[in-house]
Amino acid sequence: MLTNDPQIEFWFDFGSNYSYLTTMRIEALAAAQGVRVLWKPFLLGPVFKSLGWTTSPFVLQKEKGAYVWRDMQRQCDKYGLPWTQPGTFPRRALLPLRVALLGAGEAWIGAFCRRIIQCNFVEDREIDDAALVGEILTALGLDAAALIAAAGTDENKLAMRAQGEEAMRRGVFGAPMFFARDEMFWGNDRLEDAVAWAAGHVAPRIVLA
Amino acid sequence: MLTNDPQIEFWFDFGSNYSYLTTMRIEALAAAQGVRVLWKPFLLGPVFKSLGWTTSPFVLQKEKGAYVWRDMQRQCDKYGLPWTQPGTFPRRALLPLRVALLGAGEAWIGAFCRRIIQCNFVEDREIDDAALVGEILTALGLDAAALIAAAGTDENKLAMRAQGEEAMRRGVFGAPMFFARDEMFWGNDRLEDAVAWAAGHVAPRIVLA
Repeated sequence: MLTNDPQIEFWFDFGSNYSYLTTMRIEALAAAQGVRVLWKPFLLGPVFKSLGWTTSPFVLQKEKGAYVWRDMQRQCDKYGLPWTQPGTFPRRALLPLRVALLGAGEAWIGAFCRRIIQCNFVEDREIDDAALVGEILTALGLDAAALIAAAGTDENKLAMRAQGEEAMRRGVFGAPMFFARDEMFWGNDRLEDAVAWAAGHVAPRIVLA
Repeated sequence: MLTNDPQIEFWFDFGSNYSYLTTMRIEALAAAQGVRVLWKPFLLGPVFKSLGWTTSPFVLQKEKGAYVWRDMQRQCDKYGLPWTQPGTFPRRALLPLRVALLGAGEAWIGAFCRRIIQCNFVEDREIDDAALVGEILTALGLDAAALIAAAGTDENKLAMRAQGEEAMRRGVFGAPMFFARDEMFWGNDRLEDAVAWAAGHVAPRIVLA
């Protein structure tokens, strides 16, 4: 099935390390296949809580956690991305997520998200910080004060909460998560598959063997 | 660092669905890069128990479990592999794992493992079954009765237990797991990376960006 307007939903949290890999890669990959990215920032913490986890599985499961940091280094080397293991994990990202929600349909969303998530996973800085978010918005030529004020309105706070509820309703249990033509794909490892699916290059069932 | 004899350890359980994808793919992939596969059958259940899980995370976490079956269908379509969601999961595989441990260094190990794991994930049959294991060994031209008897000796039972203890000591927390030049890689999604690492095609640190 080919659609006239192929698109992929990208659900992410700036605190999620595998969301870092995807945030840095998705726009170029999707554009190469004529697929539009719908940016879907959400708070992963409440989703984990709804699943009975008090924090990231990478913190709860020490063996997996130790592996994940080594895996991130290798993956970043593979993709040619810089990497620093953050001193705090998972990092709170409420304000930048609220700004991303406001800007989800704007031309600057990709650049904003890349800059924020690099502050977390390359520069090891706190990102739930109005000064930092303001600097980044200003550097993008935007009205930082107006955007930060709009991010903090009751309307936008409720929209952020609704976004999280939609994530849970649709079965999101981690990040990054993709939706392409009603199919859900989990993890940066499925980014290429999800984009191909969105572009209509993958039929729903091809069994070659 | 290039070694004269590149090799990759492949740790697996016949009850593990992502081990199915790797079991079907690893020999051809490794051979293409001149890498020898060291087959490392082990019981995943005791490892999960040591981590505090009573069964597979895909059973314990319903949302993830539902996703995994859809993911398996899509992955099998992508790799051109047949797929049937098993009626029992995770399936006990003690006898075939003990036979695989006996045969780990033999020329028939790959064919045996592929046949057993297909019985689980294509034919939806119980695999911890002496009749089935015997049929498969016989079809491979082997002395089924002798191998099944050897699989059940105290010596081999202790070797199987030691294999599981080695897995835990080395930090294995799931399957498939790979070791290549002292690096641990988790999951079928890392098979290509692990083989390339084993072959020495990946330097320990390449940062392109």
